Formats: sequence, C-alpha cells, structure tokens
Amino acid sequence: MKVLPTALQQAIEAFRALPGIGPRSAERYAYFLLKNNPNIAKKISGSISDLHDNIDYCPKTYALIEKGQKYSELYTNSKRDKTVVAVVAEPFDVLAIENTGNFNGTYHVLGGLISPIDGVGPDELTITQLFKRVFDDNVKEIILATNASVEGESTALYIQKQFDNSDVLITRLARGLPIGIDLEYADQITLTRALEGRQSI
Amino acid sequence: MKVLPTALQQAIEAFRALPGIGPRSAERYAYFLLKNNPNIAKKISGSISDLHDNIDYCPKTYALIEKGQKYSELYTNSKRDKTVVAVVAEPFDVLAIENTGNFNGTYHVLGGLISPIDGVGPDELTITQLFKRVFDDNVKEIILATNASVEGESTALYIQKQFDNSDVLITRLARGLPIGIDLEYADQITLTRALEGRQSI
Repeated sequence: MKVLPTALQQAIEAFRALPGIGPRSAERYAYFLLKNNPNIAKKISGSISDLHDNIDYCPKTYALIEKGQKYSELYTNSKRDKTVVAVVAEPFDVLAIENTGNFNGTYHVLGGLISPIDGVGPDELTITQLFKRVFDDNVKEIILATNASVEGESTALYIQKQFDNSDVLITRLARGLPIGIDLEYADQITLTRALEGRQSI
Repeated sequence: MKVLPTALQQAIEAFRALPGIGPRSAERYAYFLLKNNPNIAKKISGSISDLHDNIDYCPKTYALIEKGQKYSELYTNSKRDKTVVAVVAEPFDVLAIENTGNFNGTYHVLGGLISPIDGVGPDELTITQLFKRVFDDNVKEIILATNASVEGESTALYIQKQFDNSDVLITRLARGLPIGIDLEYADQITLTRALEGRQSI
C-alpha cells in the first residue's frame, strides 16, 4: 500500500543525490519544505534551477563569474598583481584566501586535484592554461595553494616539475602548527614540517 | 571584491534555510550541483517546486495523499480495520509503523505534538477531528503511538484524558528494552518501564 505521495518520494530521492545526505536527512528536508510556507520551497527550487544558467568560468583564472561577465574581478581589478598567481583546486579555496584580506595577487583555479584513483589526470585540470598565463602575464611567482593532502601535494609536485627549467619562482603555503593548537596534540608530520620550516625571530 | 557569483550565493542561502544545514554543507551542495550535470539540479529543482502542488492531506486520517485523491488508501482499503486507530505525530510515523507489516488498523496524524514552548497547543493539532472519527467510524481502540519524549507523553496524556468518560479502549505502545540492546547500557527510565511492563512467558 502506498504510504507517501509520489511527489514527496521524488523530492526525497532528489535530495539523496546530494553528497553525504542519507535517507533520514532527505526525508527531513523534503517534509520540512512540504510543511512550511511554499515560498521557501519556491526559493530553493528557483535558485537551484538558476545555477547553471547564470554562472560561467573566467577564461583566465577559471574562478566562477556571472554569465556575461568577461573576466573575474579578481583578475581585472587594477589593485591585483597579475604577476603573482595563487594556484588553488576549487573556487571556494579562492574565497578562503580572499577572506584573509592579505593577498593582492591573482588566482588560478585548477578545477580539482590530480587523483589517479578518481580518474583525474593533469589533462583534466587547467594546467596548460596556467602555462599560457605565465607567458601572457609575465608571471614572476606561482604560489601552490593546494590542500595539505596526498592529492594536493602530488598536484603541487607535478606543477613544480613542469616549471623546473623556467625562472618563475615557485612557492607553496607554509606547513606548520595551526594557530591555537597545543603542541602535544599536533600530529607528527605537522610537527616535523614545523621544525623543518622554523623561522628566526 | 565579489568572489562568488550571485546565483551561487543565492543557492547557498537557500540551502541554509533547511534544518541543520550549516554554511559549509550549503556551499558543498550548491557547488556539487554547479559542478555536475545540470540534469541533477533540474531534477531537484523540479521535484521541490512540485511538492506543494501535488500533495494534499487526507480529510479523515490527515496522512499525505496525492492531490485529487479523496482519502488515504490506508483508510479506504477494505483490509484496514477502521475501528482501530493509531494516533501518530507526523506522516513519517505512519511509514515507520507500516514498515513493520504488523498493523491493519487505520491512522490519525496529529500534525505535531503539544509543545507550549513552541506555541503548539491542542487546537493546532487534529484532535477535534479525532473525536469526530471516533463517533463516525464507531472506533473501539485508540493506540497512542507518539514518541517516547516529553512532548509525546504529554500529548498522549492529554488525548487519554479527553476520552476518560467514553468506552473507547485507549492503549499506547509498550515501553521496554529495544531489540539488541545490552542490559547494562539501557538507561534507568527504560529499564524501570521494562520492569513495570514485564510479561509472563
């Protein structure tokens, strides 16, 4: 016997397509929308259907831009130094660095990290486009700002090797103790890196 | 400087309206939809916008039904015993009991539980409609199948009191040890209830 209406079942199934949402959460979200003001459902539905139509990728930095915009503001703004490029994996990494308020270079979004297990090789990323930018914009420094994970490190290594014979300065984000952590709780690798990278004060 | 396109920001805000979704999860869901096939976004968007238009409440049981359907199948089906009514808080509770495959009575969905702190009194629930059903269908037994929470217990108590002077049998779901639990891990209230409700074997 049918207990839930088709429309509710479909909404539950649709929510389950999102990463990390299980059956209970999907039921909860669908029923929340059904029980509350239809305007909430309309707002979510509308904003989701607008997503692909209104967003584009900047052809220089591969950051997200409004449809119709030519380049990312983070590239065209005169205050940004085009000769310093922070290479990141995903658009939200740009947001994280921008939120520090301490970077006035430009970005290059790879669109992922090299991960053979997921079938992502260098050709799936915007690495060729990075070479072109280095040439076009006369880039002096590339900051490898990838995650401190296996994929992040191997992607950084791969890019670094490609620039072995060029005179572009390749740097990467410092590894060390995050602010606020107790020494005794730091893992061995972090502590080793913090020792290796110790600075005179 | 604007880092994320408006459409993406709106989708993130919309997801945050759902219960228990924080900023990181909202970003993750919105970016997942943007990065993947537009059909996934279309499917979610469509199913959410369809929700209110295609779902109605059964005017007898207050379970969810398809728009255009008159009563819930769980009420009209000839195999269901209309004189036994399980009173539950929400539509998903109906699903939970149906999944046991061991109940052939009908349901009455209250639409919530009495909770003064949230401003929900008896008048916000379908209790008056339950009285009418008891009369119309000549109900013999009401099973109070509300949650074993403070709100669930006080709602059950309230309904039970309303039927003090009638000859309808009022029962409630047994309290006791859930299957598979070790005695030493059972909380005191559960164990007390299990002792009080002990059965001869």
